[in-house]
Amino acid sequence: MTKFQVTILGCGSAMPTTLHNPPSQLVDLNEKLFMIDCGEGTQLQMRKFKARLSKLHSLFISHLHGDHIFGLPGLLSTLSLLGRTGDLTIYAHKEIDFLLSPLLSYMGSHMSFRINLIPLNPDSHELLFENRSVKISSFPLKHRIATNGFLFEEKETPRHIIREMIDFYRIPLKQIQRIREGDDFMTADGTLVKNELLTYPGNPAKRYAYCSDTAYAPEIIPYIEHVDLLYHEATFAESEVVRAGETWHSTARQAAGIARAANVKKLIIGHYSSRYSEIGTLLKEAVDVFPNTLLATEGQIIELNEEDSEVTDRSSHP
Amino acid sequence: MTKFQVTILGCGSAMPTTLHNPPSQLVDLNEKLFMIDCGEGTQLQMRKFKARLSKLHSLFISHLHGDHIFGLPGLLSTLSLLGRTGDLTIYAHKEIDFLLSPLLSYMGSHMSFRINLIPLNPDSHELLFENRSVKISSFPLKHRIATNGFLFEEKETPRHIIREMIDFYRIPLKQIQRIREGDDFMTADGTLVKNELLTYPGNPAKRYAYCSDTAYAPEIIPYIEHVDLLYHEATFAESEVVRAGETWHSTARQAAGIARAANVKKLIIGHYSSRYSEIGTLLKEAVDVFPNTLLATEGQIIELNEEDSEVTDRSSHP
Repeated sequence: MTKFQVTILGCGSAMPTTLHNPPSQLVDLNEKLFMIDCGEGTQLQMRKFKARLSKLHSLFISHLHGDHIFGLPGLLSTLSLLGRTGDLTIYAHKEIDFLLSPLLSYMGSHMSFRINLIPLNPDSHELLFENRSVKISSFPLKHRIATNGFLFEEKETPRHIIREMIDFYRIPLKQIQRIREGDDFMTADGTLVKNELLTYPGNPAKRYAYCSDTAYAPEIIPYIEHVDLLYHEATFAESEVVRAGETWHSTARQAAGIARAANVKKLIIGHYSSRYSEIGTLLKEAVDVFPNTLLATEGQIIELNEEDSEVTDRSSHP
Repeated sequence: MTKFQVTILGCGSAMPTTLHNPPSQLVDLNEKLFMIDCGEGTQLQMRKFKARLSKLHSLFISHLHGDHIFGLPGLLSTLSLLGRTGDLTIYAHKEIDFLLSPLLSYMGSHMSFRINLIPLNPDSHELLFENRSVKISSFPLKHRIATNGFLFEEKETPRHIIREMIDFYRIPLKQIQRIREGDDFMTADGTLVKNELLTYPGNPAKRYAYCSDTAYAPEIIPYIEHVDLLYHEATFAESEVVRAGETWHSTARQAAGIARAANVKKLIIGHYSSRYSEIGTLLKEAVDVFPNTLLATEGQIIELNEEDSEVTDRSSHP
């Protein structure tokens, strides 16, 4: 079964605290690490939670507020010190070039690898990356500046063959691939053997959606409907719903409302305001609306591809 | 007695590890915090060790390698979120403007305070800041790029008056200041009372010197002679002395050699290469040359103004 897990490196917001680091996550899909956002200290969080820098495939930056990007210079510098040679693609809004170019040109002659900046489309759903097993796309969120959410989708795997039936009908090797893709089989005497007798369904294709930062925005629901896991920001408790609106953020209850309306399987909330030293209220307010809600914590790993998706907590957080 | 203490926020080098953060220190002089260098995660280290962001007076950046500056954007952003209004002066080499200006112009309209960049002179000793109780100057170090060390010097306080003697001779209030400055006193009948009978010496003026990053450079000795505390980089053990030279860094033994030749009272070494998970060798090699050597640790506080300068360890480091 394909590995598909999300590691929370930081689930705080603009102002880091001793409880929460600025935003960053790793999506580990089939041994490739895709990083979402890169707040200050992200490279250290990777070391702390033993995520391998050498497996970093590409970066996805939701928007250009400091708490989502201030870890980039340090991370890029360290990758270079470690001697990375493969190009690194960063998907981000085009202004990132203006922000990073002085630093990059300054480090330029010493960098061991090339950076490939791909601009995000802030206005519509767009496919960013695709390979044999995964599709990654972005879609617009609703924030003070151009901001995108990201959708990580496994591709359905071909059907699994039933070895005994293949042997029984002596099906030639060259026909197996077609059968995995759904074809029936015709025996030498002209009997049609239906595909369902020869195979069982492939692994279900899991989907993960990241929505941060964003105001309450029901218009994002079509992009995230039925995902297996939704990370949605929940900066504020309901008592701060007015401030949430003013600052283009969401409350935990609003995050849960989106999860319910989008019929997602599981919700994980984060991007907590630094005003909350205790976040039980956020969880309670979310669970009232959408029971299958988790609180994000630094070091937490959420497995998408297990019979019963499990959460591992590698953090030393109390 | 004036408060004069140095807090180590980070004493690692280019590549942060789980053991050591990138370089940063706070010099707390009379309730003003002067920051030296600002590696990634510095603002978090301040929170961890309960140093008050509101007391931050100015910043001194030794040189523009990433490990000494990548914490600046986050720190400046947080100061603004906290509503700082007073100007913040940053002493750094002039290229910092080129590196930071895109970020600052991007944050510009939201910044609650102004930043005042003062260029460092990379070629000679220069006074940077002076007030009633302190003088801060910079001097050239020897590194791959322009790099400066910093010298924090208390000013000698006036002599302390001996209250009983002042009363005995009925010395008028308006003459006290002159007597604190060393004047003798003439009684009404023309008797000269020597100052030493009326006063005892003021507090000794302590001095702290910061030298990182630098190759072994005996030419810095005149700037740091007899300081009470010298922080000197010790990136490598003696087994890496060739590499130290090639990378314009020092070994622990070289740092101790500088401390001995400069007749400093105490040496603290840091800027450890990430290759060392165990730094006992560095201490041993330094102590062989200069016995009064300390190893820097994150969270450590070195008091300069105590009868017997003490070290407090607030870190949770094993």
